[in-house]
Amino acid sequence: MEVVGELINASRKKIGEAIKARDTEFIQETARQQRDSGADYIDVNAGTFVGKEKECVEWLIQSVQQVVDAPCCIDSPDPEVVDSALRLHQGAPIINSISLESERYNALLPIVTGNECKVVALCMSDQGMPESAEDRFSIAEKLVNSLVQKGVSKDNIYVDPLVQPVSTNDSYGVEFLKAIERIMTELDGVHTICGLSNISYGLPKRHLLNRNFAVMGVLKGLDCAIINPLDSQLMADIKAAEVLAGRDTFCMNFLEAYRAGKLD
Amino acid sequence: MEVVGELINASRKKIGEAIKARDTEFIQETARQQRDSGADYIDVNAGTFVGKEKECVEWLIQSVQQVVDAPCCIDSPDPEVVDSALRLHQGAPIINSISLESERYNALLPIVTGNECKVVALCMSDQGMPESAEDRFSIAEKLVNSLVQKGVSKDNIYVDPLVQPVSTNDSYGVEFLKAIERIMTELDGVHTICGLSNISYGLPKRHLLNRNFAVMGVLKGLDCAIINPLDSQLMADIKAAEVLAGRDTFCMNFLEAYRAGKLD
Repeated sequence: MEVVGELINASRKKIGEAIKARDTEFIQETARQQRDSGADYIDVNAGTFVGKEKECVEWLIQSVQQVVDAPCCIDSPDPEVVDSALRLHQGAPIINSISLESERYNALLPIVTGNECKVVALCMSDQGMPESAEDRFSIAEKLVNSLVQKGVSKDNIYVDPLVQPVSTNDSYGVEFLKAIERIMTELDGVHTICGLSNISYGLPKRHLLNRNFAVMGVLKGLDCAIINPLDSQLMADIKAAEVLAGRDTFCMNFLEAYRAGKLD
Repeated sequence: MEVVGELINASRKKIGEAIKARDTEFIQETARQQRDSGADYIDVNAGTFVGKEKECVEWLIQSVQQVVDAPCCIDSPDPEVVDSALRLHQGAPIINSISLESERYNALLPIVTGNECKVVALCMSDQGMPESAEDRFSIAEKLVNSLVQKGVSKDNIYVDPLVQPVSTNDSYGVEFLKAIERIMTELDGVHTICGLSNISYGLPKRHLLNRNFAVMGVLKGLDCAIINPLDSQLMADIKAAEVLAGRDTFCMNFLEAYRAGKLD
């Protein structure tokens, strides 16, 4: 499973302060820790800096790429921000995200097709948020087909079926997981990605719910997650889940993590 | 999910000693703790007392039933032991287990059909241990059909698809889980049951693997597990898994467990 380290997000107080103060060292340390803990991508988000998001994201990318060899995940719905970020990012980042909402789709499409990058394809449309696995799959299929037709390779598409809180509807967990399975089977060649925390919104013991949801995701074929890689319990659960789901040949990754003391 | 508390097993040193010394208090305290922690059945096993298993199991059942209102799970392959245990057990216990191995099947069948009890139907046949989900399902189907034909109600049958170690074969986890799903769907009305610990045999961090395997089982429909109910992390994971699998209406059990401090 690939991991996008989610910690460099302006909505987190310390990160917001570090961005404001241009505290390069703090940002770089946060990037380094995530990379050392197994992040394959470093998310950068400056969404709370309205009107200044572009220069904040540029600064974040430069700071992160000075010290870490993993690409970034550029986490912004604003095409201008994404475009300027892509100009200075070295290597192929993930763009988070395009969707089937016409305005967003039309604005992001030329950027996605005109650059070497991967893209999160969020299962949202002008009809709003999906409810069932069927809804999610239907949006995913349209979005993937359309991107592929424009020349984006399936391997560069990360479908996010959109996690919604089980506190709102008992079936939201299962419907999300069914969508993951169907996308990974029927749209063979694409990836799936998600953030976890929305699943537990409105409930106590969110960490308990989130990490068990990750485990279920691994069983269903989820192959990328936007998480906190410093959360050693979650990371260990994912490693164990990969063994149990038959996704860790001869348990090699699990045993390597064990020997490195990463399952404690 | 129903829980069979597994702790009263003679292969555990302290329990073996307590059985030998007829330490009623220790056995009763172990039963009481398991019941208080959420066990629906109390397993009794005296398998290491060769030649004396029958009187040991009788004593265990009497000791347990004096203090706990949950039925026992009579854990013995010996028809004589099971028969004598059934005579003094109050209420309907679970018998663990009948299988498709002819000798065992023929010896246990009259006991199972002649008493008010539930029965674990273990997916083993004269051809040995099953490898694939298909193997497991095929044995399960024959065993269930045969028991139903003899008058056993589906609701009294607990199919155990037989957990085998992933350290032996990467696919054993997935094949087991597929079997659970198929049994719960196609043999509608029966239950599924398993012990967990075999999955992690030969690997480090067994508890990590076992509890994540339980979570995956819940997603696939497993509705009974033979576990240590005093393991609060495992019990909390199962409660969370039931929420995520859409098996806890309005999250009521989860919230109740939270308020009772059982998710800590």
